[in-house]
Amino acid sequence: MIKKVNHIAVVVSDLQASMRFWVDALGLELSHTEHVASQAVDVAFLPVGDSKIELLQPIDDESGVARYLEKRGPGMHHLCLEVDDIVATLARLKGAEVQLINEEPVIGSDGRKFAFIHPKSANGVLVELYELTEE
Amino acid sequence: MIKKVNHIAVVVSDLQASMRFWVDALGLELSHTEHVASQAVDVAFLPVGDSKIELLQPIDDESGVARYLEKRGPGMHHLCLEVDDIVATLARLKGAEVQLINEEPVIGSDGRKFAFIHPKSANGVLVELYELTEE
Repeated sequence: MIKKVNHIAVVVSDLQASMRFWVDALGLELSHTEHVASQAVDVAFLPVGDSKIELLQPIDDESGVARYLEKRGPGMHHLCLEVDDIVATLARLKGAEVQLINEEPVIGSDGRKFAFIHPKSANGVLVELYELTEE
Repeated sequence: MIKKVNHIAVVVSDLQASMRFWVDALGLELSHTEHVASQAVDVAFLPVGDSKIELLQPIDDESGVARYLEKRGPGMHHLCLEVDDIVATLARLKGAEVQLINEEPVIGSDGRKFAFIHPKSANGVLVELYELTEE
């Protein structure tokens, strides 16, 4: 079951500058920022309703996010959906011949399980799936 | 105040074909489809949590959505945020020198008020604001 939109990720070139729009002008709240070394990004978390906007700034030129920014410019990067059972969801997607970036769930440092669906199978949308442990 | 993500809009070239991923494979529910003549799109509404994914298929070659599809291919098109007071939100954005596509709210046929923020001011994201009357 798909529970909700966990977050919409937006690639930006300058996290601090981007706050002037999302926080100062639009009025969203910044909950916190994180340095995610494994993805080579700094992330700002902006809760909205039962979801979040996550602003991603690449911190080197090599990461997937950096290459996306270089190629397409800033904008929406991926859509993360929260599921109750990521293994069952991936099995179902494989059965439907959906192309997956991660065939098996990846376990994050916080215990969160995640996997990406290839945009070729999802109308050009990079879809991330999350199964959270704390819920 | 920003209340929630009302929807994430995804441009697709074929609404029926796109259901095979979003509904049949991923397991989202299709609530209904609408023909929106003013935007020259057919729209499929897929509720998820307190938000929705809206799939947009252009029905001619002239609309903004059709030109987006032609230029960039299918993918995430805009992010719609629900606000409690769209006039106050637009005033605040103007005060912050944010570039707006609609300086004043547009009134939809259902009484909904909406306005678009220019992606140049929003890290490449086309942001739509909604103020709904029924809430």
